[in-house]
Amino acid sequence: MNINRRKFLQNSAAGLAMTALAGTVTTACTKSEKKSNAKNTACLKISLQESVTPGNTLRQKLDFMESLGIAGIEPSGHRLRERLPELKAAVKDRTVKVSAICAGFSGFILSPYPEERQLFFESTQEIIQAASELEALGVVIVPAFNGQQPQYPHTPETRKFLIEQLQEIGQIAALYGTSVILEPLNRGEAFFLRQVADAASICRDANNNGVRCMGDFWHMTFEETSDMGAFLSAGDYLQHVHIASRKNRLIPGEDGEVDDYVNGFTGLKMLGYDKYISYECGCSGDRPTLIAQSVKMLEEQWAKA
Amino acid sequence: MNINRRKFLQNSAAGLAMTALAGTVTTACTKSEKKSNAKNTACLKISLQESVTPGNTLRQKLDFMESLGIAGIEPSGHRLRERLPELKAAVKDRTVKVSAICAGFSGFILSPYPEERQLFFESTQEIIQAASELEALGVVIVPAFNGQQPQYPHTPETRKFLIEQLQEIGQIAALYGTSVILEPLNRGEAFFLRQVADAASICRDANNNGVRCMGDFWHMTFEETSDMGAFLSAGDYLQHVHIASRKNRLIPGEDGEVDDYVNGFTGLKMLGYDKYISYECGCSGDRPTLIAQSVKMLEEQWAKA
Repeated sequence: MNINRRKFLQNSAAGLAMTALAGTVTTACTKSEKKSNAKNTACLKISLQESVTPGNTLRQKLDFMESLGIAGIEPSGHRLRERLPELKAAVKDRTVKVSAICAGFSGFILSPYPEERQLFFESTQEIIQAASELEALGVVIVPAFNGQQPQYPHTPETRKFLIEQLQEIGQIAALYGTSVILEPLNRGEAFFLRQVADAASICRDANNNGVRCMGDFWHMTFEETSDMGAFLSAGDYLQHVHIASRKNRLIPGEDGEVDDYVNGFTGLKMLGYDKYISYECGCSGDRPTLIAQSVKMLEEQWAKA
Repeated sequence: MNINRRKFLQNSAAGLAMTALAGTVTTACTKSEKKSNAKNTACLKISLQESVTPGNTLRQKLDFMESLGIAGIEPSGHRLRERLPELKAAVKDRTVKVSAICAGFSGFILSPYPEERQLFFESTQEIIQAASELEALGVVIVPAFNGQQPQYPHTPETRKFLIEQLQEIGQIAALYGTSVILEPLNRGEAFFLRQVADAASICRDANNNGVRCMGDFWHMTFEETSDMGAFLSAGDYLQHVHIASRKNRLIPGEDGEVDDYVNGFTGLKMLGYDKYISYECGCSGDRPTLIAQSVKMLEEQWAKA
């Protein structure tokens, strides 16, 4: 750990009295979840990324969500600190909570250039602080996109290095009562981390309360042979889920019969998963209608699982 | 495909009339399997590697296996062609079948040197032919051990190359009614392929009846966060399983309570797995006694799963 980061940590720890409980997240089920036949404590908590949600203002977006019993909103990490007052005010006294923060950081962990890594740490720390104030479950991160070059090669040494770096940033996230959430992407976007079981094994090796992982049904379509197997491998490290239609990355259901999530949902129920399933996708038609139909379809598939 | 290999394939296809059904493997359950509460068609078929089995002669080894209701023997691929008459004669009229063939090839797939790869292809083809005559389910292979250097780096291009090579050797294996079985090892032995879900995704991408994968509880202890998740990800590609105690790679049970396979067995039952679970391990005490106790313990754990 370099001195800047250690100092940041100390300052952070000192300032934590005010935010110590910020990461405490409600796990109560919404109306739509109660309808499902969830095993254990599992419940379907749907979230939408902010940009997926129809509405010209945040208020309109939240009104739309509440009208469908949607439980969470996932903002981007981009400019999150600036937007913090607006976002905090918007979700106050709402049933919709901030589920997670999607990326928004600069730089990347697996850069051989210290300044790129420093950029990642500084920008991610800033997002973590905001995520904590918003009581989000975590900040979605990617160790290296294919396009981020040069990057360290895929070797045992790089994996060890990644885990050390994650332990540092995870320690900060945990102090703030939130987490960094490793997202495996498909090989076309990030060959370094493609599978949920690999992300989970990184979490296990990091052995840090602030380091968690997720699965995205879109990427899983190409990289996983079993949605259920992938989620069971994620186990208690599973902190978030993304969802999209399985052919064209649109609203779930837009691709018809291939948009089958029952096997994955069964795995989530076996885990007692009670965190969010968040839409990260485009839309080819009338957004409010398609999302309403989609939520209904997911509720049906959850009930079947 | 080079000309030698194409010629080999043509010759092989021509000679296949005699061996076309060689790969048809009995899936009947042994006595011990019938005792279990296997879901679907799943049944516990225990196999021992030949070198694990007590006895000075093959006959003694097979007598020992039959006395415990053990279903399979797994010989090494080393010198398999020479040993073929002996092995064929030994298993004739026995309840014990040849489960799979463990490695024994020379060279390796991910070598940048064509002569190393040619060595792999020629030696593996020879083992495949013998495996077919022994009606084994497949030949266990590893794309690259850490010690095999230089090897292609872990990149998208190498993965594509691996899949092309597997399609070639898999085509031959399938013609002979058997398979090559990718074995993920722990990172200390083979960083390139460490997880069952990754092996399964390689099988899916290869899309070839002769390319299959396996899980080894020993390696899985270090690389998987969930035995069940790993096996569910393997799904129909799962062709073989290795087992050992989970701390010291001895006879299952020798490490006491940590030798818990129930979660993995539950996954195997969910798959309807009816292939072999084969001991690949050392032994720290009286081999016949420890193996007998171990088989009993696995039967109990299978029943619990």
